[in-house]
Amino acid sequence: MHMFRKNIKTKSGEGLIIREAIATDASTLIEYVNKVVGESNFLTLGVGDFNKTVEEEEKIIEDHSSAKNRIFLVAEINGKVVGLLNVNASNKPRLKHIGDFGVTVLKDHWGKGIGSSLIEAMLDWAKSTEIIRKINLNVQANNEAAIALYKKFGFEIEGIIRRDSFIDGKFYDAYAMGILIN
Amino acid sequence: MHMFRKNIKTKSGEGLIIREAIATDASTLIEYVNKVVGESNFLTLGVGDFNKTVEEEEKIIEDHSSAKNRIFLVAEINGKVVGLLNVNASNKPRLKHIGDFGVTVLKDHWGKGIGSSLIEAMLDWAKSTEIIRKINLNVQANNEAAIALYKKFGFEIEGIIRRDSFIDGKFYDAYAMGILIN
Repeated sequence: MHMFRKNIKTKSGEGLIIREAIATDASTLIEYVNKVVGESNFLTLGVGDFNKTVEEEEKIIEDHSSAKNRIFLVAEINGKVVGLLNVNASNKPRLKHIGDFGVTVLKDHWGKGIGSSLIEAMLDWAKSTEIIRKINLNVQANNEAAIALYKKFGFEIEGIIRRDSFIDGKFYDAYAMGILIN
Repeated sequence: MHMFRKNIKTKSGEGLIIREAIATDASTLIEYVNKVVGESNFLTLGVGDFNKTVEEEEKIIEDHSSAKNRIFLVAEINGKVVGLLNVNASNKPRLKHIGDFGVTVLKDHWGKGIGSSLIEAMLDWAKSTEIIRKINLNVQANNEAAIALYKKFGFEIEGIIRRDSFIDGKFYDAYAMGILIN
């Protein structure tokens, strides 16, 4: 059980809270995901593809907050969820040092540094775990803004994975990116 | 539901059956996995890391046989399971064309072409699905025999994933390999 909470400001001076998701966020997060998947074509979830029930989402949140190598971070402005970052990891002894993450921000809040704040908080957390020694992500190879952001934080391209998603009738390659946590 | 079964011969002339796993194999497969993990240090499972119950293993087998983009193949000699190949895949529309697989063979039966027979059967199946359009695998970067085998079947190295496993106190890189299915 880790309880992470940070009060900061966006680039435009708004109050921004980065905190761990809690079970009572479940229905809000389902709404959030259903909105965000319609705002970008760079995600592995499309419109209508996310079908978790509130109970399932609660369980995911609890699985994250009880695991030392997983975290579910929420970015909030004025009590509204505007961004989400999720680190998944295996329980297997040979793999439990690896976190896989994904991050999204609502389109209305792009350009405010919210993705950066989430990634920064995640990397701080990862270093504090003493379990996580590697963070991985996959990003669509033509998502230049995201790739630049990840590189800013020290992520390196480790591979080009062919046909890593199929969106509107077309295959897209992805970069496998990773950063060592020491 | 797909029902795959092939009667062939090993290099040494023994009768070899490649078939889909069925629910009643569950306890045999658990025994098999617990044996095979002790015979190689190239796997992401170590000794004692596999803790599925018979019921859980039955469910995994059924999940595979009922999904069009997953398969669980068994290699059998004289009624004994000597090899296993497992293709996992997502249900998400943007990802369901991707199969991830792993394959093992009991040490006593290495060098008989059983891994090749399993991979060949898997690729035949993948082409027949009309859903699978990409097969991925991760292999420890120093597992030269396996890498050569995958290359023989047309798999290409798409990336070098750092710290992809942690075995006996040491991190190992892996190759992300993939093949397009057309």
